[in-house]
Amino acid sequence: MKTWAKRLAAALLGMALLPAWGAVEDGYDLWLRYRGLAMVAQARVATQARSIVHAEPASPTLQAAVAELKRGVAGMTGKEAASATQSADGALLLVTPANAPKGVDLPWSELGREGYALRSLKLGGRAVTVIAANTDTGLLYGSFAWLRAAQTGADLSRLDLRAAPKLGLRLLNHWDNLDRTVERGYAGASIWDWWKLPDLRDVRYVDYARANASLGINGTVLNNVNAKADSLTAPFIAKAAALAEVLRPYGIKVWLSARFSAPKELGGLKTADPLDPAVRAWWKAKADEIYQSIPDFGGFLVKANSEGQPGPQDYGRNHVDGANMLAEALSAHGGVVMWRAFVYAPDTGDRAKQAFAEFQPLDGQFAANVIVQVKNGAIDFQPREPFHPLFGAMPKTPLALELQITKEYLGFSTHLVYLGPLFEEVLRAQPDGAPVAQHVKAIAGVANIGSDRNWSGSHFDQANWYAFGRLAWNPELASSDVAREWVQQTFTTAPRAVDSLVAMMLASREAVVDYMTPLGLHHLMGTAHHHGPAPWVDDLERADWNPVYFHRAGRDGIGFDRTPRGSNAVAQYAPDWAARLARPETTPEDWLLWFHHLPWDYPLRSGRTLWAELVARYDRGVATVADMRSQWAALKADIDPQRHADVAAYLAVQEAEARWWRDACVAYFQSVSGLPLPAGTRAPAHSLDEYKAQRFNFAPGRGG
Amino acid sequence: MKTWAKRLAAALLGMALLPAWGAVEDGYDLWLRYRGLAMVAQARVATQARSIVHAEPASPTLQAAVAELKRGVAGMTGKEAASATQSADGALLLVTPANAPKGVDLPWSELGREGYALRSLKLGGRAVTVIAANTDTGLLYGSFAWLRAAQTGADLSRLDLRAAPKLGLRLLNHWDNLDRTVERGYAGASIWDWWKLPDLRDVRYVDYARANASLGINGTVLNNVNAKADSLTAPFIAKAAALAEVLRPYGIKVWLSARFSAPKELGGLKTADPLDPAVRAWWKAKADEIYQSIPDFGGFLVKANSEGQPGPQDYGRNHVDGANMLAEALSAHGGVVMWRAFVYAPDTGDRAKQAFAEFQPLDGQFAANVIVQVKNGAIDFQPREPFHPLFGAMPKTPLALELQITKEYLGFSTHLVYLGPLFEEVLRAQPDGAPVAQHVKAIAGVANIGSDRNWSGSHFDQANWYAFGRLAWNPELASSDVAREWVQQTFTTAPRAVDSLVAMMLASREAVVDYMTPLGLHHLMGTAHHHGPAPWVDDLERADWNPVYFHRAGRDGIGFDRTPRGSNAVAQYAPDWAARLARPETTPEDWLLWFHHLPWDYPLRSGRTLWAELVARYDRGVATVADMRSQWAALKADIDPQRHADVAAYLAVQEAEARWWRDACVAYFQSVSGLPLPAGTRAPAHSLDEYKAQRFNFAPGRGG
Repeated sequence: MKTWAKRLAAALLGMALLPAWGAVEDGYDLWLRYRGLAMVAQARVATQARSIVHAEPASPTLQAAVAELKRGVAGMTGKEAASATQSADGALLLVTPANAPKGVDLPWSELGREGYALRSLKLGGRAVTVIAANTDTGLLYGSFAWLRAAQTGADLSRLDLRAAPKLGLRLLNHWDNLDRTVERGYAGASIWDWWKLPDLRDVRYVDYARANASLGINGTVLNNVNAKADSLTAPFIAKAAALAEVLRPYGIKVWLSARFSAPKELGGLKTADPLDPAVRAWWKAKADEIYQSIPDFGGFLVKANSEGQPGPQDYGRNHVDGANMLAEALSAHGGVVMWRAFVYAPDTGDRAKQAFAEFQPLDGQFAANVIVQVKNGAIDFQPREPFHPLFGAMPKTPLALELQITKEYLGFSTHLVYLGPLFEEVLRAQPDGAPVAQHVKAIAGVANIGSDRNWSGSHFDQANWYAFGRLAWNPELASSDVAREWVQQTFTTAPRAVDSLVAMMLASREAVVDYMTPLGLHHLMGTAHHHGPAPWVDDLERADWNPVYFHRAGRDGIGFDRTPRGSNAVAQYAPDWAARLARPETTPEDWLLWFHHLPWDYPLRSGRTLWAELVARYDRGVATVADMRSQWAALKADIDPQRHADVAAYLAVQEAEARWWRDACVAYFQSVSGLPLPAGTRAPAHSLDEYKAQRFNFAPGRGG
Repeated sequence: MKTWAKRLAAALLGMALLPAWGAVEDGYDLWLRYRGLAMVAQARVATQARSIVHAEPASPTLQAAVAELKRGVAGMTGKEAASATQSADGALLLVTPANAPKGVDLPWSELGREGYALRSLKLGGRAVTVIAANTDTGLLYGSFAWLRAAQTGADLSRLDLRAAPKLGLRLLNHWDNLDRTVERGYAGASIWDWWKLPDLRDVRYVDYARANASLGINGTVLNNVNAKADSLTAPFIAKAAALAEVLRPYGIKVWLSARFSAPKELGGLKTADPLDPAVRAWWKAKADEIYQSIPDFGGFLVKANSEGQPGPQDYGRNHVDGANMLAEALSAHGGVVMWRAFVYAPDTGDRAKQAFAEFQPLDGQFAANVIVQVKNGAIDFQPREPFHPLFGAMPKTPLALELQITKEYLGFSTHLVYLGPLFEEVLRAQPDGAPVAQHVKAIAGVANIGSDRNWSGSHFDQANWYAFGRLAWNPELASSDVAREWVQQTFTTAPRAVDSLVAMMLASREAVVDYMTPLGLHHLMGTAHHHGPAPWVDDLERADWNPVYFHRAGRDGIGFDRTPRGSNAVAQYAPDWAARLARPETTPEDWLLWFHHLPWDYPLRSGRTLWAELVARYDRGVATVADMRSQWAALKADIDPQRHADVAAYLAVQEAEARWWRDACVAYFQSVSGLPLPAGTRAPAHSLDEYKAQRFNFAPGRGG
């Protein structure tokens, strides 16, 4: 009878772990779901987490680590892991050098300030797991790593992991406006409820911190790079300070985007000239004011002299003058300036060349606490771009890699596109023998986070936040492994379903390249909102806003000639690359039309002409999405009903929009090439004029 | 042992009913929380809901009723109420005339199309509860009424209720823009994710429908009265149709705000003149198109010739011409035009007079399916306004009462102000012997709903949505009773705590009047955003945008003379009222300065001078908020920690802002009156100039 009662109790405890009605899988819990495991797995995890031994009194960071472990263990097993002071069988020990048990050899020096080691070992005859780090932040990261191992089914009795981040600064960039709109945001309003801060602290801020800490993200720029000076006023500093208080225990520093002209707008100065003493004094005082409220403030992110933003060039100065002035103001406090290299101004020839042209000559002149933040490619977050020529070209300047997590150009939050392979592609690209990951000191991702219940607008877009964070921590991770662990934590651990989901995700990035901009094409999207195809647009004020500027399709062929015969952008690359990219034969086919203008009958490796290959790739993209839909439909039994229905609806939209992209682009390029469709190819569903006539007045993401 | 096991099982079942971790009381469930009751209450409810007997096959509406009952019973008792075909002891019977048991006498004719009766009775010796209605919508309303009775601790074994709505149309008006901003919205972005509709149907839409159906709200205008023509395009009609499909089972019709100039903007016509045959044909075709997709479309809400919106006066026509044209287009389909009487144009003398002046002479000329929608007062949703003079003045025209649930002028979602007493005040006002509630055929509330997790931006603002709905259903309800049942469903049923919460809520409306605009003052708030005090503003383009226009304070006194010596707005009221309002002695003191300009030493009933009374009321408002804070603090043990902390933070803001209102207004009026502060009165904390210097660039709610 006692056994029966115990079983009943266990079964009911299992029930108690199920989400409450109404709190069904809505995506809010991200990859930190900690749902009840199957019986065997439950026991396996519970055995390894019977108690948690940690220092007392615990710092807020250590408290966060312990609370997360307790929450995770309770969720997965239904059993509580109590805090303890003595280790016993199945204990989890959180140790720093100050309280490490004698006789246990731990690789402290390899762990640095943020790293951790997880190790299963015997201690006084007791089987325990040690989570070791030099700091409480390292313990927090180690705790999340242990929970990740538990959720993904690792053998917790034989752990021997160590990890330390390769890059010191791993930041999210929020393009969130102070009115709560989000530029290029597709997940509702900003999560920062500026109006109610600092008095009201949404519980969501804590969950945001937990999610980021679980990935090792250690900084967040709260406001849009297209900044309002208001973000530097006292009321907004108080609001940022309130957020900093919430994020601090999770190892996350707060940064702000700074408007270069703020000394005029806020300080009443006549100029924002970076060499003007009054301007320098204003920034110094402003930095002091900020650090008064936020002692660990990260620093400023600056978009200057780009797309109409003010900057040092307004006063005949250069980026070094501007960045170093801000760096000086921050340096006494240990702050950093992230100065963006994404610059373009009208009529400078090839837009792809401008960042290099402006920044490369400044190498070696920036102050020590300036980091130049460079987008992955030279245009603007396209589905595929060759790596940016600045990587490897500024050896004396710390660089940051800027990636876009929000899918401005890749179908918003509606299209399932896993960006892991895109991030991996640039991190592993070798500008000069070493990968990009080794050329940068920092990494920044433009966030895809909003107030939608599922944070990112769609369930699969959570994977892009996750992949950014994981690859920021360790750029050597394979994006396929990252996809796998995300799936296991987010959807299911059933092996067949995991395989299928990972396959879908990995196929998805190439699919979007194919159905939007194959073979190195770029910037073909609709004006301003960037939704849908508009390769025909040729009437915008500035030449380099028009898709026709980028594809240069005509009767004679298609593509942007960036060889020495054209804009000679290839010369911005290291000599090996420059030589390789100067000839179509040696240019990676996926980048072909980025660098070359080629005739429609140019023969490709497939044996097809360029025209036939172009159409074939568009078709392949659509077919891949159709295939993703079928795969998803087949997974119905493996996924909870709500998320299955949500994703199915998104995939239906994606397939329709992939066809639209394909049809509109094929119709347009055919009208230009004058060539018949390759044999056996489906004609576009509508006339070119019909595609041209479409308008999207309320597309999201255009900001305030 | 068996007993022990049973007890364990029961205890664990109890646990299973607790909300999952992370899904703690965040306010999402509104008043439909159905949390586990205490043991005795659980048994009492379970005994009365052992099974649910209903017709098969059930309509979607009946399915919704049954699902809600099951959800509620499972939540409150942990026991499932299964569907059954035969009644047994403890059955809930959902019956219409088609399946009513023989021999039970039910008041069918009194129930109408939407009403219901709940009755405990014996049927063949079995104790059952009958939920009776003529339609499935009535059964749904009856089911919610039963659940409300269960949640508020009514004796479910002796039910004998009947209810039918007094007003046929009970609508929410969403001032939601197509870009997902919300004009005067203080709860985040619009819940309508237009961009993803019609493909994606947020689960939240169903919960929105449930909440409204629980109150009997039977229509919703989806978009802002400051309308874009785009809302009438085919893509947006498809989006509205998707929402209509979700809402239809819950008895809720979809309506749209229509832009009067749409025939020009969408139809390419040269005019929107309502007498132009092409314009009439365009609207006719547009109505037909809408009804093709939404067969039960409610109709159009129109803001015309007001605040810059286009309208019939642009073509020398009047409101009748405009409204009747639209009415004609809708009439074949049973649609209705809600034509707003909120009009004001520059330089027409007393702004309070304009709606009456334009509309009253048109009485009797509107088509049968036009309803003129009149705000509760003649200015604009101030903390207190005298009832609108149009009520009772257009006996041949169906009127709707427009109330504002969102607190544009009452502290946004940050201040705790229960609007039940405000709604009650206007519903019970007697323009000519009968209350306003009897002068209207419809009621509309400007929604306070957004995508914030708690729907309304703060927990207590949910009460205003609730109170609107309950009073719309039955304008004779006491707002205190409505507060009580809301508290019982939303927070706690503990009697002492309920009493305290109800007292707070009832005090809150008078408090906001006191600390913002006592004694009939109005329109003293900050420009455009309407946040905070700004009685000094006198430089806005239009006279009637300036607070000084409304309070007219000077050395000689304060108040707007609307007697025959002044603007004579009092003449718009019925003779008894006109006579009463023409003299300060017979004017309700709470409206005094709305109608009269009086010297600072005018004696009031309190024995104080006007100046002393004004300051005393400001002080009383602040004191009441301080008292609300103490009351709330004392309730800590009765409220879940998250909501207690949230509300405590809001109340701290409210007290600070109440002081700010009081101090800024007292400082300003003192600067005008030149009088010393009454003895013993605290001086304002800051100088008048400091109050004047404040700016709020990113105040929410200004829309797109």
